[in-house]
Amino acid sequence: MISTDDEDLKTHGYSEWSTVNPNTLPVAVAYPRSTEDVAAIARICHRYRVPLIPFSGGTSLEGNFSAPYGGVSVDFAFMDRILQLNKDDMDVVVQPSVGWQDLNQTLADMGAGLFFPVDPGPTAKIGGMVGTNCSGTNAVRYGTMKDWVVNLTVVLADGRIIKTRRRPRKSSAGYNLNGLFVGSEGTLGIVTEATLKLAVVPEVYSVGVVSFPTIRDAATAAAGVMQAGVPVTCLEIMDEVQMRVVNLSGNTAPRTWKELPTLFFKFAGSKASVAENISTVQAITSRNRGEEFEFAKDEREQQLLWSARKESLWSMLALRKEGQDVLSHAGSTDVAVPLSRLADLIEVSKQEMDELGMFASILGHVGDGNFHESIMYNKQDPSERQKVAVCVHNMVNRALNMEGTCTGEHSIGWGKKESLVKEVGQETVDVMATIKRSLDERWILNPGKIMDVPWMRKETHPAKGDVVVTPIRGVEKKASVE
Amino acid sequence: MISTDDEDLKTHGYSEWSTVNPNTLPVAVAYPRSTEDVAAIARICHRYRVPLIPFSGGTSLEGNFSAPYGGVSVDFAFMDRILQLNKDDMDVVVQPSVGWQDLNQTLADMGAGLFFPVDPGPTAKIGGMVGTNCSGTNAVRYGTMKDWVVNLTVVLADGRIIKTRRRPRKSSAGYNLNGLFVGSEGTLGIVTEATLKLAVVPEVYSVGVVSFPTIRDAATAAAGVMQAGVPVTCLEIMDEVQMRVVNLSGNTAPRTWKELPTLFFKFAGSKASVAENISTVQAITSRNRGEEFEFAKDEREQQLLWSARKESLWSMLALRKEGQDVLSHAGSTDVAVPLSRLADLIEVSKQEMDELGMFASILGHVGDGNFHESIMYNKQDPSERQKVAVCVHNMVNRALNMEGTCTGEHSIGWGKKESLVKEVGQETVDVMATIKRSLDERWILNPGKIMDVPWMRKETHPAKGDVVVTPIRGVEKKASVE
Repeated sequence: MISTDDEDLKTHGYSEWSTVNPNTLPVAVAYPRSTEDVAAIARICHRYRVPLIPFSGGTSLEGNFSAPYGGVSVDFAFMDRILQLNKDDMDVVVQPSVGWQDLNQTLADMGAGLFFPVDPGPTAKIGGMVGTNCSGTNAVRYGTMKDWVVNLTVVLADGRIIKTRRRPRKSSAGYNLNGLFVGSEGTLGIVTEATLKLAVVPEVYSVGVVSFPTIRDAATAAAGVMQAGVPVTCLEIMDEVQMRVVNLSGNTAPRTWKELPTLFFKFAGSKASVAENISTVQAITSRNRGEEFEFAKDEREQQLLWSARKESLWSMLALRKEGQDVLSHAGSTDVAVPLSRLADLIEVSKQEMDELGMFASILGHVGDGNFHESIMYNKQDPSERQKVAVCVHNMVNRALNMEGTCTGEHSIGWGKKESLVKEVGQETVDVMATIKRSLDERWILNPGKIMDVPWMRKETHPAKGDVVVTPIRGVEKKASVE
Repeated sequence: MISTDDEDLKTHGYSEWSTVNPNTLPVAVAYPRSTEDVAAIARICHRYRVPLIPFSGGTSLEGNFSAPYGGVSVDFAFMDRILQLNKDDMDVVVQPSVGWQDLNQTLADMGAGLFFPVDPGPTAKIGGMVGTNCSGTNAVRYGTMKDWVVNLTVVLADGRIIKTRRRPRKSSAGYNLNGLFVGSEGTLGIVTEATLKLAVVPEVYSVGVVSFPTIRDAATAAAGVMQAGVPVTCLEIMDEVQMRVVNLSGNTAPRTWKELPTLFFKFAGSKASVAENISTVQAITSRNRGEEFEFAKDEREQQLLWSARKESLWSMLALRKEGQDVLSHAGSTDVAVPLSRLADLIEVSKQEMDELGMFASILGHVGDGNFHESIMYNKQDPSERQKVAVCVHNMVNRALNMEGTCTGEHSIGWGKKESLVKEVGQETVDVMATIKRSLDERWILNPGKIMDVPWMRKETHPAKGDVVVTPIRGVEKKASVE
């Protein structure tokens, strides 16, 4: 099925959550129903040099599924099935449009005793999760997407179909193509099927929060918990502004929380080990001026509290005044740094944000040294836009100076290419481009993401902040005979 | 420093532990002292199209550092320093010839409270460990080499130097080059420096063994422990023959062990969690006809017992009669399968080995579905050689039929290329070759490993089992202009 409906094109090429959107849309949306369908689409697009952009949940934040060069958006809406559950092997075979929450609901309904632990935004789907090497609050215990992929079925640029591996949980057989395709944002191949490891559901969970007088104390305590090797399941930070957002949202009503810098902990395991971990963590937090722990009283409150954290972006959105836009809590502000630099970076960034005089907050996966800023501002006001841009720019630079990364989990997409070059250097990006070219000589797979198309030039439209793309005359020819 | 000493060339091109050795040696051994030295060597070799083969511990088992096309062995003997310990960040920067045991000894001496958990053969070094994506007994809890690399400094085929990442523990910035270079056996670039994550040393350890009437019972119990999600640190299997080898070796004297199929467990964590894990595991093993647990009485006995497991290859070697050779416990027999198939595969393989009428045993990292066979046989006896070859061949095929892999941790090297094609298919190997060609057009980086050089033909010399390599006339030219 192919759609050229205007609304469909817009949904597949534009995202209000994205920090950046090019001023173009795909020319069509294809809805394949099988790997063979995708291969057929790829063969045609390869022949006519038409860009191919995979699409599943559409929740990414850096224009990852945008269509700066037009082309066909490949929406996996009809490839949303769990194909096979291998309970005894603790793995599952899924299509790209399976949502991680739906997968976990299905596993729970079946009483499988297993779950998929990678937990990005609630509506994210496996295809995009593979593309961005996403993570989420569980990453501190369970790692990121790349750690949970057993094998992938991939359609290459010219329509060939490969499978990266068979189904062992461990292998050293040849190049780790799983590791390469995960996080490559559909620029090297289109993933049509994935075998994922599953984890055993812990016996009990406990969710606790603890407030600190300053954000530095909270960040220092978080690093201390990691350095002590306590196997916490989640370790999140939220500043006083973000706590206020939770209260204002009413998501955990009637319960409200102190509007102070706060650490959220999730503990999991056996009853005894959870109790022990809590006591170890309490010792560390109180050494860092943490108050008493407050625990969620029951499973319902645990879920409310956790969903308050997970839905913080939406809570921010719900609070915005007319004309205000949220610079998504992700987007340009997804830095991660070595643990020892965390408190410094958070403190300085927070201070700078406060000086902006705007409604801004910090939250993040502090156990991984990874955090985000949410800033509410008026996109129509050039001076506000400028201030936010400077603030975000400074934050990324500061993280890089601390040997960190510009993106802990949201990936590069269309929006962060310049930061990537700054982070790893042009020669390393050249190596990525060499690999890209070797697997996609015609540069049809999600072109313009992670790195520029060698023969295209990107310009920012000064009036709108939109991006205009123009081919550089003569370069295409040169590049293609290199 | 460059050596052309005969003994040196032999040490760097031949391994008695390897399942296969080509009939050639490197023409020289280079001993660089810095990344810049390696880059200079690469530039020269690139210019003159001379193969470059990285060498560190020399413990690999599939001819990974052999020199089928001659060339220069790059021995990192003088690049053996720990460059930087970032205690608060829980990472360390090392050169390729740092041994993992030495690294851990240094960390212990410093009282860092941290260790590097990837534990392959005792004398393995970081360079080769990165090359093969190795693992070891800790993998069931801590994962494999690829999970512990933060960034790599890599010298490319033409001498360019890149760094894959900065130093955050988590990142989604561009292609995961760590994941690609780890396990690529020096065929894509030469690693000269690595930043590795470290883990926190657990409060206590406990080592326990439990015997079973049959190997099937032991394997079933092992799968049961994994399916219950018990966070064991190690879960090893040894059959009755291997237990006899431990007793005969005298390594744990005066203590001896029952010569029955046995599971080795290592537990780690807080005292309470270790006690709890042991009790959960005991319930599972006794359901599977396991006897009572025997625990190592103190730390000395723990270490003796564990080293008995780790040194099983050497124990086997010590027991061999004159003229007998060990088909290393690794080598061709490093299969891994989904957990549910483990008991079947081990049982059938064991039966086939017994029917050989040779001294053969099974041991392995059964928690990962990964195990090895050790077979002692007389290399000079064509009929024994033939029988072993058939047995190994069958075992690999059986694992592949069970959706497994031909190599859980020792990688492909020179010896397992045909199995790789069988495992993932020619089209997937072609993708690997495409990536290889893009980064090393002249095919000078460890050529002949993982995949054949497109323009060379491999032949087995019928009399000696050695391998003779001859260029295919005319193909080189064709390949180089593709």
